[in-house]
Amino acid sequence: VARSDSVRQTNLRAILRQLHLHGPASRSELVLRTGLTRSSVAAIVGELARAGTVIEEPAISDGSPGRPSPVVRADAGRNVVLALEVAVDFIAGALVGLGGVTHAADRIDRRRDRFSVESTVADLADLAARLLDPPVDLAGIGVAVAGLVKRPDNVVALAPNLGWCDVPLGALLGDALGLGIPIQLANEGDLAAVAETLRGAANGVDDVLLLSGEVGVGGGVVSGGRSLIGSAGFAGEIGHVTVNPGGRRCRCGSTGCWETEVGEGSLLRRAKRRSDSGRRGIDGVLAAAADGESVALAALRDEAHWLAVGLGGMLNVLNPQLVVFGGFFGRIHPFVIDDLRRELPRWGLAATTAGVDIVPSALGLDGPLIGAAELAFEPLLGHPA
Amino acid sequence: VARSDSVRQTNLRAILRQLHLHGPASRSELVLRTGLTRSSVAAIVGELARAGTVIEEPAISDGSPGRPSPVVRADAGRNVVLALEVAVDFIAGALVGLGGVTHAADRIDRRRDRFSVESTVADLADLAARLLDPPVDLAGIGVAVAGLVKRPDNVVALAPNLGWCDVPLGALLGDALGLGIPIQLANEGDLAAVAETLRGAANGVDDVLLLSGEVGVGGGVVSGGRSLIGSAGFAGEIGHVTVNPGGRRCRCGSTGCWETEVGEGSLLRRAKRRSDSGRRGIDGVLAAAADGESVALAALRDEAHWLAVGLGGMLNVLNPQLVVFGGFFGRIHPFVIDDLRRELPRWGLAATTAGVDIVPSALGLDGPLIGAAELAFEPLLGHPA
Repeated sequence: VARSDSVRQTNLRAILRQLHLHGPASRSELVLRTGLTRSSVAAIVGELARAGTVIEEPAISDGSPGRPSPVVRADAGRNVVLALEVAVDFIAGALVGLGGVTHAADRIDRRRDRFSVESTVADLADLAARLLDPPVDLAGIGVAVAGLVKRPDNVVALAPNLGWCDVPLGALLGDALGLGIPIQLANEGDLAAVAETLRGAANGVDDVLLLSGEVGVGGGVVSGGRSLIGSAGFAGEIGHVTVNPGGRRCRCGSTGCWETEVGEGSLLRRAKRRSDSGRRGIDGVLAAAADGESVALAALRDEAHWLAVGLGGMLNVLNPQLVVFGGFFGRIHPFVIDDLRRELPRWGLAATTAGVDIVPSALGLDGPLIGAAELAFEPLLGHPA
Repeated sequence: VARSDSVRQTNLRAILRQLHLHGPASRSELVLRTGLTRSSVAAIVGELARAGTVIEEPAISDGSPGRPSPVVRADAGRNVVLALEVAVDFIAGALVGLGGVTHAADRIDRRRDRFSVESTVADLADLAARLLDPPVDLAGIGVAVAGLVKRPDNVVALAPNLGWCDVPLGALLGDALGLGIPIQLANEGDLAAVAETLRGAANGVDDVLLLSGEVGVGGGVVSGGRSLIGSAGFAGEIGHVTVNPGGRRCRCGSTGCWETEVGEGSLLRRAKRRSDSGRRGIDGVLAAAADGESVALAALRDEAHWLAVGLGGMLNVLNPQLVVFGGFFGRIHPFVIDDLRRELPRWGLAATTAGVDIVPSALGLDGPLIGAAELAFEPLLGHPA
């Protein structure tokens, strides 16, 4: 039930979100973008400026008649969040200012002997300390995790590729950082999907499926403009949909998960490369395919086949307008897209496969981190003054 | 962006929705249920009464001290919608008053020779004419369809079990009824899922998966309290997720859809009953199983196995809190639930399978029709005055 100041709050949010997502604008442009009156925009900009979330800069006349309108921008210097990422191959962090300005960022490859919870928390704290030198007042901390995150509790319920189960990462990280700033965890695929809709390949699209993966296969869903997270935050685990129940055992304990038939591991296996050769191995397969090597080409055709089997089902369940291929799938996109498009109608209904676009990610490896920053900005954007 | 009267509109909606979903209430109860002040409630109830959506009835004192508070109820007599359903085995219709009061209802079994679009539209118009005698002013018309409905266009894009493709059912029905009342179409599974969350087995639950089916296998998803419809309205086609790519050909043209391994047809096949014996055949299988017939028991075990394979994947994608078994699946629920629960962790992640409840539908066959009525009430509930 609405309170009496809800209109004002709604308008404050609308203007700040505009500036955050779509960049600086004059007051006149804000009138056009939001449909609010000139006097409302003036009042709201004034209130946001007093709250320290926006700044107005003197306008430079563009030569057109009339008094130039000052430019309003999100104050990226005073409103900063810390975004962190726990992937399998690396950890990463960034300081991001309101408006999406990256002040500093770092990414560190890591070895299997640093997978323990203790090592990971220590490495994240070191990374954060470097980013926060000199110190910055933080508005929030968002963390993307390569695993299932129980959202309300900030607990990593399961991260099969890290060997983690029920890890209270939010609390551990809070203690290690010692900053007293709210921390919010989420699955990396869910965050990457949101990031692509806000600032990437799915900009402005309301129904999007992101398929991503390096070692494992993950994903994220935006439906009707909202992140699909499910009852506890575990939705979007599309890598663990059974597509071949008579097939191979999956790391998760099940059999024939989509992850056993597509992704880095399956492509290396089919191309007869070393299973532990990782991204370099994949680059080798793609280079060989470009040179016409038949084993590599056959492996990519098989990859496209199993992409079609699983994706057809996901299109029938979710009916996205756009599918974004991130990570490993973004890199192989040009090699599989023709076969995939040809085979997709065999596995999905015409209604859900015909209209869908399948494009590579625009944000690439940065998607989860950008999504983590957006997650950390949510409280500020939700209550701007 | 909010307009200046948005608070008033929000409060009108909140009160009317309370009365519609949760039944008559005194003003004092409405204060408790909504958190609005007594004077706000009085003003809103007055405005709703003038608009003709609620009525206030003299209170009968319950013996407690103080002046008895009049009872406010949705005016089910003056606010009526027509709900229609196009299933495979039958068509159905109901006149439903605000508050969910069914004034009249009818359901007609139909034969395969009445599957043509022309016959179906004529039969629906006849059914509606009987329900609307004597005439009633309608607030809207909602139609549940056993097929993929392109929501914005009111077009049935595909109904494999009716043999329909790209049928502009909304327009055809509008012409046949000749009432000039807005018509809204949606998929029967999507509507049944919403109905179960509003008035059924999933009452008040925000993340729900409905699995339903008679001839085909359908479903509906409510996520975060909203119906998951996808970009065009085709989401929730869980019967056409590939679970056995080396398996049987599906009616939809694909191979190994979940619908080929679970549902009426597969159970009859495995229990060695006639494939066209329909609901009576299923009743026979269940009776035989209750008597300990080994073929029937084995068929139900196989059904539970394939339910687990497909459902495990859907739990990983959608992470519902509750799964509702409707139609055929509601009837077999007591016969398969133990095997299904035992096998589910083999196919779904522990995080998504452990906490989920799987219950039979409370609304049964009426779910889609109740959902269609709710769809027809949406404009009135969204703009009550």
